[in-house]
Amino acid sequence: MIAIQSRDNPLVKRIHALSTSGRERRKTGLTVLDGAHLMAAALDAGIVFTQIVVSDTGLAREEHQALIARVGAQCPVACLPDPLFAHVSAVESPSGLLALMAMPALDVLPAMVNGSLIVLDAVQDAGNLGTLLRTASAAGIRLALLTEGCAQAWSPRVLRAGMGAHFQMQVLEHVDVETALAGYTGRIAATVLSADSQSLFALDLAGPTAWLFGAEGQGLSDSLKNLATTHVHIPMPGRLESLNVAAAAAICLFEQVRQNG
Amino acid sequence: MIAIQSRDNPLVKRIHALSTSGRERRKTGLTVLDGAHLMAAALDAGIVFTQIVVSDTGLAREEHQALIARVGAQCPVACLPDPLFAHVSAVESPSGLLALMAMPALDVLPAMVNGSLIVLDAVQDAGNLGTLLRTASAAGIRLALLTEGCAQAWSPRVLRAGMGAHFQMQVLEHVDVETALAGYTGRIAATVLSADSQSLFALDLAGPTAWLFGAEGQGLSDSLKNLATTHVHIPMPGRLESLNVAAAAAICLFEQVRQNG
Repeated sequence: MIAIQSRDNPLVKRIHALSTSGRERRKTGLTVLDGAHLMAAALDAGIVFTQIVVSDTGLAREEHQALIARVGAQCPVACLPDPLFAHVSAVESPSGLLALMAMPALDVLPAMVNGSLIVLDAVQDAGNLGTLLRTASAAGIRLALLTEGCAQAWSPRVLRAGMGAHFQMQVLEHVDVETALAGYTGRIAATVLSADSQSLFALDLAGPTAWLFGAEGQGLSDSLKNLATTHVHIPMPGRLESLNVAAAAAICLFEQVRQNG
Repeated sequence: MIAIQSRDNPLVKRIHALSTSGRERRKTGLTVLDGAHLMAAALDAGIVFTQIVVSDTGLAREEHQALIARVGAQCPVACLPDPLFAHVSAVESPSGLLALMAMPALDVLPAMVNGSLIVLDAVQDAGNLGTLLRTASAAGIRLALLTEGCAQAWSPRVLRAGMGAHFQMQVLEHVDVETALAGYTGRIAATVLSADSQSLFALDLAGPTAWLFGAEGQGLSDSLKNLATTHVHIPMPGRLESLNVAAAAAICLFEQVRQNG
């Protein structure tokens, strides 16, 4: 383990850049995992770390020591004073432990898309995007297709909100959804507010469904709306007829779980 | 309308303090609403603004001009250059329009708590707290009880995530939940991960329910867990058995909507 004290240290500069710049992540192919929980989920999925960084305070925690021991001697470990660790960390409440990992090579769309999946259209908020992946993964969904306008799926903030979902499902970015779903034989469902849509709770959700979720505010793009074979709304008895996109997705995906359980 | 150019202007200093300091909000009894959508929801609910602030760019938008016209001449309006507006705004992507309003006087617990409600225990994340209120309001819930450790319910970030929920339901803070629910005759349901709990989808949700939701990570406090008459889990077929608290609440509250719809 090496101890680093200075902001001018090249490793410190590199991690700071990876934490704060999507461009730097794309250029290097590396990203930053924050926290023992996320790191353990990555290790469980066979991910290899290229660097571990721990804060002085973080090093005192047994959970962190166990994780460092689990990774073993082949991965370099750097120890930073707490303020310097906060400087390199990408998240609001740094956990005191982080790791660098190579982002998965750009995944190729399966020749045939089948089974249930989610399509996320221009979801720019990192927290929402990560929560959507986490919820989908808990519901047993194994494939997420992200359109051009989405936040970077492997950014530290999306990873943190995903809580390990990235390692349990295939997440494809910059997807041309019309092409991807051209031969899809399941239902393609879009949530909309219009009353001429079907109630989620009246829908028979047997068989696979591709769920389309758009960014809040603007909603789904017209081309995706036209792709949908089913327009569905969530009945809202309250006076505030409005749901966060991640909440709406949770309701839809777990209605599917309920029906097929 | 007055134009302001300087960070040293007393009004600019005051709004910046209200946007960034919970202590300042408590001291003055004022809070900040960001954006036309939230301001319109407040006006619909009869809220009176004490000050409107608009950015140069924000002033050009028709939606903003209409809102300023709706409020009328009795509310002072200040116009700020965009960078100065960003300085006083509490949110990440300022909309270009904000208003000051008096926070509601500390509400008194109804003599008899009945009907369905949510109890939020030590939910510190502003986005989660606001989303929980928004989801509950959409589900027709009219009362939220917040324990001591929750984020300030009327902070600008919680208000923004709530998207108007605050004006549609009673939100009580610093609540002693054991006392509040002492005479409650409905079901008191806590979501837990343990398998000896009932599946949400096997539960009969007729009649009122008090839903207890805890902070992520630590979960519900023991005293609240003991208060629950029903322990419930959400079946998760995926390998990642983990949900964001706001996603879990959405699933529970809309299962109740489904059953009683």
